Amino acid sequence: MSNSLFNPTPRILMGPGPSDAHPRVLKAMATPLIGHLDPEFVQLMDEVKEMVQQTFITKNHLTFVVSAPGSAGMETCLVNLLEPGDECIICINGVFGGRMVDIAERCGAKVHKVETPWGEVTTPAQVKAALGQCPKPKLVALVHAETSTGACQPMKEISDLVHNAGALLMVDAVTSYCGVPLKVDEWNIDAIYTGTQKCLSAPPGLSPVSFSDAAVKALENRKTKVQSWFLDLTLVKNYWSGAKRAYHHTAPVSSIYALHEALSIVLEEGLENRWERHQRVHQYLKSELEGLGFRYLVKEEHRLPNLNAVYLPKGIEDEGKVRRQLLDDFNIEVGGGLGAFAGKIWRVGIMGESCTYNHVNMLVGALKQVL
Amino acid sequence: MSNSLFNPTPRILMGPGPSDAHPRVLKAMATPLIGHLDPEFVQLMDEVKEMVQQTFITKNHLTFVVSAPGSAGMETCLVNLLEPGDECIICINGVFGGRMVDIAERCGAKVHKVETPWGEVTTPAQVKAALGQCPKPKLVALVHAETSTGACQPMKEISDLVHNAGALLMVDAVTSYCGVPLKVDEWNIDAIYTGTQKCLSAPPGLSPVSFSDAAVKALENRKTKVQSWFLDLTLVKNYWSGAKRAYHHTAPVSSIYALHEALSIVLEEGLENRWERHQRVHQYLKSELEGLGFRYLVKEEHRLPNLNAVYLPKGIEDEGKVRRQLLDDFNIEVGGGLGAFAGKIWRVGIMGESCTYNHVNMLVGALKQVL
Repeated sequence: MSNSLFNPTPRILMGPGPSDAHPRVLKAMATPLIGHLDPEFVQLMDEVKEMVQQTFITKNHLTFVVSAPGSAGMETCLVNLLEPGDECIICINGVFGGRMVDIAERCGAKVHKVETPWGEVTTPAQVKAALGQCPKPKLVALVHAETSTGACQPMKEISDLVHNAGALLMVDAVTSYCGVPLKVDEWNIDAIYTGTQKCLSAPPGLSPVSFSDAAVKALENRKTKVQSWFLDLTLVKNYWSGAKRAYHHTAPVSSIYALHEALSIVLEEGLENRWERHQRVHQYLKSELEGLGFRYLVKEEHRLPNLNAVYLPKGIEDEGKVRRQLLDDFNIEVGGGLGAFAGKIWRVGIMGESCTYNHVNMLVGALKQVL
Repeated sequence: MSNSLFNPTPRILMGPGPSDAHPRVLKAMATPLIGHLDPEFVQLMDEVKEMVQQTFITKNHLTFVVSAPGSAGMETCLVNLLEPGDECIICINGVFGGRMVDIAERCGAKVHKVETPWGEVTTPAQVKAALGQCPKPKLVALVHAETSTGACQPMKEISDLVHNAGALLMVDAVTSYCGVPLKVDEWNIDAIYTGTQKCLSAPPGLSPVSFSDAAVKALENRKTKVQSWFLDLTLVKNYWSGAKRAYHHTAPVSSIYALHEALSIVLEEGLENRWERHQRVHQYLKSELEGLGFRYLVKEEHRLPNLNAVYLPKGIEDEGKVRRQLLDDFNIEVGGGLGAFAGKIWRVGIMGESCTYNHVNMLVGALKQVL
């Protein structure tokens, strides 16, 4: 039993992540290990840092990779920027905004919530009103692509409001990164984190993060120690940059190999081509799903192309049973709803390597047989 | 440049970790991804949990894997067991005891330090004296195998003192796990964490952890929220066990594949055979190194077999240059000293797959050419 071989059934991953990994990325994972302080590994980290800067479209010096999944990236941003008593505004329109509130409160921050129905986006007017109630927040946080609902948050106008108030703008880009336009410097984002297992199509387990100079200044001006040692950027940054490369923790060598390969693939395709591909395949998926009677949760102008949150066709009582059929009979994974949407919607991901016409055709063909 | 291929030079890993990974483990890393909530992945997690219990030699129900390296395992134990104002005793005889103090203080705990010269071990008399000063600590923490010095801490007698005082015993087993005798239930350890990249010979990035029922009770009786959301066991445990398998974060799927394979290899060999192999190869390495003029830092009775901390032969001025020669000319990595021992000692690891006569012969042959 225990020490039997594990040979998982090959799956077609069309849920909210992980997405299918490219064979080159899988192969990179199998590369023999080298030491995490080996000069060749240090060079690899430099290259990864540069490619993360390119894919975030930022010149931020403090750009690096947290050695843990996206949720740890979220916590990294919050624990480094918030101190007990700090005020912040957090916009909630799904699971991940709610998670930010939970973490910010654990930092001892005073959190002002801007709540929007799930599936919608936060408006500049809401942020303006919140700033009226809390005129000097340290930080305003938003989710760019809400993985629980498929909503894509417009950024530029809110960013201006936030910076006019003297606050830092923190953004969750877990599901948008490398799939839809995301421009860290142009949009003036001060702290951003993402994951590797969505539109980047690397295995889950790492979180690329970038801090603007203003965020670094806030970090340097802290009066208290960061409450997490593992995520303390005053320590981590000396491992990821600087002349000394001070040992902090042992980097997940194989995962960094895979990240390097996945980033290379993104840059070979070109970011704009990749955004366009996600949009093009989305249009095809949308017409097919709507033809089958699925209805989108999110209004068209705020819809993510890569994460399609849809109500099932009328007459389907048990969505879980249908998802299980897709998995068992066709090896296709799609996601169910979270929170209030559990049992009500599906989340169909076409992310990175899973974003092809072939994937859509497999799913649609299977649905026609199952429904 | 950035998007060039990364083909690292194959290395012989004989430093403090990572160690060489078995080809089966590397192959497991390249297995195509499945979803982190896929029924097959849930079964894999169950099997991993059971094998972690077997290798820790424990029946602890709360046994699981933190989705981040060993340092995050350390932080997991401390943030879950300590609350602001709690008193604890931390024994320091190297880098990692010091790190525990740093984290415990970030938890708001009142820390009583038991300091021992690096390279030595904490005595029961020291712990008894500390308990005299702090009669009702919540927790006493020790490092079983101090990676910075190669010292192996005897446990049983101290464990009795700790439990007689009504405290919990927390142990760092990063470098001892699967390499030297480690018996969680027999030694009455309440909270233990380890890493994957030492004697288990899996890639770095995960941290197996186990909590006794007494530790779980302390967790359940907390008055405050755990300060880290990502490491909060009241949430994580619902992902790793229980009927619901509540989504917490996306597990690092590929790394769990590799961990499953590495654990299988350990159990195929048998824990006792593995301990004996580390001891046997250590004896051979020791006689060879001493023949070349190396001297051990740690007294024989407290010496780890798998991490050999040695002073260089007389007359070698620049140890860094020699290590660099080993790496450049022979592709062999050995570790330098940390802290006060930087530039003074080497740390030669024979861990897991790197623990063979062939490894010793490669190193000793190279040393004879270089010195």
